Amino acid sequence: MSDHNQLLEQLRRIVGAPNVLTEGDLTAWEQDWRKRERGRALAVVRPATTLEVAAVVKACAAAGVSMVPQGGNTGMVVGSTPDASGTQVVLSLTRMNKVRTLDAGNLTITVDAGCVLQSLQETCEQAGFLFPLSLASEGSCTIGGNLGTNAGGTQVVRYGNTRELCLGLEVVTAQGEVWNGLTGLRKDNTGYDLRHLFIGSEGTLGVITAATMKLYPLPKAQLTAYAAVPSMEAAVALLGLAHQHLSAGLTGFEVMGQFALSLVVKHFPQQRVPFWQESPAAASGRPKQGTAPSGGREPHEVGSVGAPYYVVLENSDNESEAHARACFERLLEAAMEQGCVTDAVVAESMAQARALWHIRESIPLAQAEEGLNIKHDISIAVSRIPEFVRVTDALLQKQFPGARLVNYGHLGDGNLHYNVQAPEGHDAARFLVEQENPINALVYESVDQFNGSISAEHGVGSLKLEKLEHHKSPVALDLMRAIKHALDPHNLMNPGRVIRG
Amino acid sequence: MSDHNQLLEQLRRIVGAPNVLTEGDLTAWEQDWRKRERGRALAVVRPATTLEVAAVVKACAAAGVSMVPQGGNTGMVVGSTPDASGTQVVLSLTRMNKVRTLDAGNLTITVDAGCVLQSLQETCEQAGFLFPLSLASEGSCTIGGNLGTNAGGTQVVRYGNTRELCLGLEVVTAQGEVWNGLTGLRKDNTGYDLRHLFIGSEGTLGVITAATMKLYPLPKAQLTAYAAVPSMEAAVALLGLAHQHLSAGLTGFEVMGQFALSLVVKHFPQQRVPFWQESPAAASGRPKQGTAPSGGREPHEVGSVGAPYYVVLENSDNESEAHARACFERLLEAAMEQGCVTDAVVAESMAQARALWHIRESIPLAQAEEGLNIKHDISIAVSRIPEFVRVTDALLQKQFPGARLVNYGHLGDGNLHYNVQAPEGHDAARFLVEQENPINALVYESVDQFNGSISAEHGVGSLKLEKLEHHKSPVALDLMRAIKHALDPHNLMNPGRVIRG
Repeated sequence: MSDHNQLLEQLRRIVGAPNVLTEGDLTAWEQDWRKRERGRALAVVRPATTLEVAAVVKACAAAGVSMVPQGGNTGMVVGSTPDASGTQVVLSLTRMNKVRTLDAGNLTITVDAGCVLQSLQETCEQAGFLFPLSLASEGSCTIGGNLGTNAGGTQVVRYGNTRELCLGLEVVTAQGEVWNGLTGLRKDNTGYDLRHLFIGSEGTLGVITAATMKLYPLPKAQLTAYAAVPSMEAAVALLGLAHQHLSAGLTGFEVMGQFALSLVVKHFPQQRVPFWQESPAAASGRPKQGTAPSGGREPHEVGSVGAPYYVVLENSDNESEAHARACFERLLEAAMEQGCVTDAVVAESMAQARALWHIRESIPLAQAEEGLNIKHDISIAVSRIPEFVRVTDALLQKQFPGARLVNYGHLGDGNLHYNVQAPEGHDAARFLVEQENPINALVYESVDQFNGSISAEHGVGSLKLEKLEHHKSPVALDLMRAIKHALDPHNLMNPGRVIRG
Repeated sequence: MSDHNQLLEQLRRIVGAPNVLTEGDLTAWEQDWRKRERGRALAVVRPATTLEVAAVVKACAAAGVSMVPQGGNTGMVVGSTPDASGTQVVLSLTRMNKVRTLDAGNLTITVDAGCVLQSLQETCEQAGFLFPLSLASEGSCTIGGNLGTNAGGTQVVRYGNTRELCLGLEVVTAQGEVWNGLTGLRKDNTGYDLRHLFIGSEGTLGVITAATMKLYPLPKAQLTAYAAVPSMEAAVALLGLAHQHLSAGLTGFEVMGQFALSLVVKHFPQQRVPFWQESPAAASGRPKQGTAPSGGREPHEVGSVGAPYYVVLENSDNESEAHARACFERLLEAAMEQGCVTDAVVAESMAQARALWHIRESIPLAQAEEGLNIKHDISIAVSRIPEFVRVTDALLQKQFPGARLVNYGHLGDGNLHYNVQAPEGHDAARFLVEQENPINALVYESVDQFNGSISAEHGVGSLKLEKLEHHKSPVALDLMRAIKHALDPHNLMNPGRVIRG
């Protein structure tokens, strides 16, 4: 205890007493985003510079106190909150939130780890560039957290995950040394790629304090289309056509199952969902001039028959809106001819485009309105997704009759949020408690059969630590353990996350 | 010695006696590509399967014999040949050269490590897809070697280095275990990114035996332009415009200095080099309809005045050749208006395009004809290249009067082959022996000043091992050493390359 007091004194000297939080309401740092777990920190320490981070790490390491690096604390897998022991230091990076340099000629921006993603996006846009990482929590999450977890989001089909957007890192090692790898180089073959090792390591190997990220020219136009498709096979066929017709213009490709959309229709009836009600034109299979959502209210009957799946597509164009529209129309025509789209609409305005995306973004919220549910974040080779869905849907229906599938996600990347809601009328909370483990087991077993991943974009944290031990190859786990021991031999960096130290 | 004989017996049992080479001319395996060093192997072992590789590694590890993984043996930094001791086993992967699966719906191909790059390109093209990795040695190098060294080449500006094209690996670890990470997933956040750790590790952490690589739709048209630019600043400005106008269509952007081109003109006079002779239109700065090379012979006077730099640009288009041409013309018009291009020509046919690229590709050959020279493979943030070149050119001229700069490379990636040729009339061999070290030191010191890399795409091998120790940050070197010890504790995997074990 007095050891801890000595450490706290040291930490106050390093970052200033007001930045060592030990009292008051620390919920924001101690509770995870999904409110699954609440820990207790020895202190929340908020350094303002890389050197302060290094000094904090050295002090904690000398005291044998483990550290939990934290950005916006918006993770989905309980990876950035302290355990219940009251002996861990939360290392919050949010005071380090500055843009260091924007290099227009090099198409790079160098930022502190605590920079909020949305503010980073805005800074880039104001300078005439696109920073393409985009995800639901962008108003709160930080680029350091995005890197630590290798966040995905909605533009991965074109720009890749966070790791693909990163050219260099600054990291404080578990020993409190500063590695400055902020080079902004697009080519650098001078040894092992330390950058990619720290990215996605969820703070278990060191603390990311800054990064150099790629910028892209702002597209001249961004168009959104919305299509009803007759099957998951058709959705995958549409994706293939979209790659051919749009090439790198394809910047978004999201799929939504019928039941997922029905929840949006039910809980957010003010949203207009195109093609929700069966129409004669849809049945005829002929191209139809659809009507994009106007934002106006229109009543919908839950359970009215629509297509089994819907797709939101985005086309970013560096020429003009007219060109983007022409490309989109050629694509959708070809898709209708091949029968992989039954109805489609291209947004006529930014407002319409936003409304279409809003449908997709409303699914998690609608699902929460419907009640607690069992979430998955899986990936499968795109070509095998139809078979995976058919097989796994059937297994679930057989073993958990009435369970309702909220199936949606980033089909362009083979990433589904294949979530399971309690049967109609069941107690959702009880369903979660009783069925989460067996349903997880069934889904992950199926993912294994299809050579997929049990965590596509959310990471491991502590939530999936044991599952990883079960589903990942023993050789890979051995390699990971060897790396963890090599870089953090005393297991002080976010212990109990990703891999046991 | 008898230990070695026992091992050789074991190896013969594993791969078959004809695939354990100990006699005859082993130059192809024992001498490096640039003929800088000649080693001697205990044996060249040629396994046919991953399990054979694993068995070979286990046998060598048990005998304490170190291994040198080798693909096409086309590396530039003496990284895949044995040392002179006669005690190392060369593990040649070239018999493992099959395509395992091509998954059109997933846009991936899974191949054995020993597959020759060009044959991989051709397989993909026949199936209607582009595999974009392209480099000078593609007729001999293997995809395993490309991955081991994270090869670059001429399409990096759009598609990234080899690592960016790889979704998954199969690796035999230093312990002889097989890690199967051939998932073909575009998103997989289940722990440390082992893939990126093995890529670029030059066989020092394990042996890559197969890989799943990304495919792209074949572009509908590929056009090449050739432009004379008044300065390196102008070349960088042209690159910025090209990003804006062509976006992801920009698939190649190479720069060539005047002296580099003069060597092509001198040694390959049958090649027609556009804008080589000063023309009135060029001097006027007005747009001019250039004439692309026809392949016909036309005499050139060495030393005739041209622009200080020339650029080869490639535009890949997913619509049509007409569209590609229109985009190129808009770009070149804008560039001429801004004064960053003085003359430009767009190839009218595939033959013309090939001829333009051939000029660029002939530079290393022309340089070899001119005599031995001091090669560099450096990268700098694109925005700082003009300043780097100005400063470093001046330093070189001051300290090595008359030294001639063969400056060319992948400007789109900030990667220059900033080579130095002996002064006119000097003995090139003697210049190399006497001046290589001091010229390396000067250039790399300057690279350090500009926060660049001393090895952009060629890797470290043994040629740059000591230089890396001098130029890389001690923290990074410590991290690399810790990883090497963790994964290859007995230093048996390609020892003496990249980092001392």
